[in-house]
Amino acid sequence: MTAGLASMAVALAEMPASGCALCVSLGGDLVWHDERLRVIVANEPGYPTWTRVIWREHVAEITDLSDVDQAHLWSVVLRIERLMREVLQPHKVNLASFGNMVPHVHWHLIPRWPDDRHFPQPSWGPVQAADGGEARAQLQQAVRDRWMDALRAALAG
Amino acid sequence: MTAGLASMAVALAEMPASGCALCVSLGGDLVWHDERLRVIVANEPGYPTWTRVIWREHVAEITDLSDVDQAHLWSVVLRIERLMREVLQPHKVNLASFGNMVPHVHWHLIPRWPDDRHFPQPSWGPVQAADGGEARAQLQQAVRDRWMDALRAALAG
Repeated sequence: MTAGLASMAVALAEMPASGCALCVSLGGDLVWHDERLRVIVANEPGYPTWTRVIWREHVAEITDLSDVDQAHLWSVVLRIERLMREVLQPHKVNLASFGNMVPHVHWHLIPRWPDDRHFPQPSWGPVQAADGGEARAQLQQAVRDRWMDALRAALAG
Repeated sequence: MTAGLASMAVALAEMPASGCALCVSLGGDLVWHDERLRVIVANEPGYPTWTRVIWREHVAEITDLSDVDQAHLWSVVLRIERLMREVLQPHKVNLASFGNMVPHVHWHLIPRWPDDRHFPQPSWGPVQAADGGEARAQLQQAVRDRWMDALRAALAG
């Protein structure tokens, strides 16, 4: 499945909730979707492979979903965690579902390394290290491209 | 199942990993456990009902667990989220699994309200509001006691 315009349209909910950022925009670069959720790679400074699994419908809490839908969401999250470990070999994987500002079910999957911006704090904590300048940014872009290719291939398979 | 000394001993791994805080201490007030995991209510300032589900064995990542164990862990997390919504009626539930400092599988379940310490930021973000003094602390203790009772009753049932 390609990330072309048609897919992008399909990945968004048909009836966007008023004012919900995840109903009216993809929230990052679309990698894959099915009829219930989409997977994007975010544009977060210092985190080239920060990935989100976003439920299609505007639903606030995971326990608002049916058991079948919860299981589907969870299986995709775990599949990506496995792939992250295999492809990126991070020091640690961080998972989180908050939604305080955007109450629309979405999971963050963040591979972490001891030299990243916030380690060992969560990625929402105080900054611990500078990003490393232009050379580092170029390296991060290459890692991001590789991760998106790997993720797309794995989820389409 | 009571939270007495015998249960506490059972809830900890038999062979603690050297230096792992969650192998050598409960990490909060024990509410319930089975042979694979324990549920504690944390002692986090301003968050009287911050709850953690802690895997018994010293395992770093959720995808290090077997499928059966992953499903068990997830089912307990969701059961607590459901109960949190029913009993505490939070504005939002936050779920997270980091483990950067303590790489031993544990889930945070944090009920959130617009007037809490960090809202709408994650609870690891910059402080947004003061805690509200002694009166608020007493109220929070009462809420914590009620939550622990409800959680204990539900999980034992």
